[in-house]
Amino acid sequence: MERAIDTQIEDLKKMILLMGGHVEKSLAQATLALLSRDQSLFEEVHVIEKLINEDHIKVDNACMNVLAKQGPVAKDLRLILSVIKINNDLERMGDQAVNISYSGKDYLGRKPIQSQLNDIQKMSEIAGRMVKGSLDCFVRGDVEQAKKILLMDDEIDGLKNKVFKDSVAHMKAHSDDVDAGLDLILIARNLERLGDHATNIAEDVIFAFTGKDIRHGGKFG
Amino acid sequence: MERAIDTQIEDLKKMILLMGGHVEKSLAQATLALLSRDQSLFEEVHVIEKLINEDHIKVDNACMNVLAKQGPVAKDLRLILSVIKINNDLERMGDQAVNISYSGKDYLGRKPIQSQLNDIQKMSEIAGRMVKGSLDCFVRGDVEQAKKILLMDDEIDGLKNKVFKDSVAHMKAHSDDVDAGLDLILIARNLERLGDHATNIAEDVIFAFTGKDIRHGGKFG
Repeated sequence: MERAIDTQIEDLKKMILLMGGHVEKSLAQATLALLSRDQSLFEEVHVIEKLINEDHIKVDNACMNVLAKQGPVAKDLRLILSVIKINNDLERMGDQAVNISYSGKDYLGRKPIQSQLNDIQKMSEIAGRMVKGSLDCFVRGDVEQAKKILLMDDEIDGLKNKVFKDSVAHMKAHSDDVDAGLDLILIARNLERLGDHATNIAEDVIFAFTGKDIRHGGKFG
Repeated sequence: MERAIDTQIEDLKKMILLMGGHVEKSLAQATLALLSRDQSLFEEVHVIEKLINEDHIKVDNACMNVLAKQGPVAKDLRLILSVIKINNDLERMGDQAVNISYSGKDYLGRKPIQSQLNDIQKMSEIAGRMVKGSLDCFVRGDVEQAKKILLMDDEIDGLKNKVFKDSVAHMKAHSDDVDAGLDLILIARNLERLGDHATNIAEDVIFAFTGKDIRHGGKFG
């Protein structure tokens, strides 16, 4: 027999997927704006941010309702606490996409330096896959797949280090490009943070479905 | 008559204060290491980070226990959900102090540029006051004071913009100092993020004690 809480948890999952879709779109638009040099796409990032912020408040309220009305325990409780955390991570991902659009707008106003854009595009693609992948794991309760998300974060970190190194070298050689190089460094940093948030989500999935806390170096057998 | 949940909430507050003390100390040590050029103090930041991570897991577990055993509603529930969020913000503040120590170690290995250190010291002092202040508000349920924390964030943002501007100007004029300038920019960014987390805590306090959600531009009358 289906319990009322099962329906409510399904609703929470749907809300999280919808919110995740907004985050993915926001990241994709910010990256496309940067690569296609189309300022107007940055405006869409701000429009989507409003949706993400609305989602954020809605999900929090829905979680509070379920907690107050059902007084869940054990796995149900873990799952709802995970939704609260995932909600926070998604909202901060939205903030990172907005940060990218701010630095991106600055960047497009300057003399273009192209050399790091390839790596930034790769970082954005991986981050997008991490967002989608971590939420898929959450909805399906797929702990094995969640572990794979954790590995993707290493790829992003490696690319971030490369963008940092290459940008610094370029800035040293071309003092006119210090501003543009810094914009790209900050964008790479935002993408790295996006990956970190997806990693947090994967860790929350593992906790929700196994009860094992692998944050801060906790072992996952 | 005192309810069991009142004692448990008092215990949660004590845990949060202890964790906040670790975060304050971590930030203070990272800043002192940078200003006094004492690498060994950065190691203390890593030691404190371990404590913060332990606090993080302890607080989460304690919150889950209260939720599971007491099934709290209304103000009690809001307060416990705030603890879960504050716990997350404090843990991320600890990460920012660690990030400062990484960039700080790099910075100390280079030819010193002093010009931005004054502003960075000011930022760190404000961030420290924001951490302490936001947690004091939380423990005392002081909503008026929490609103003042929100204003302090503007001060930090202004100083961050100044460090960015001055560092970029210096990097353009001295290509040898591009690495060191970038270190200071990243440290200023970490301090700004620390302030953002304290702002989140102040918003959570307002929500916990008034039920009003002022995140994302919600009005607070």
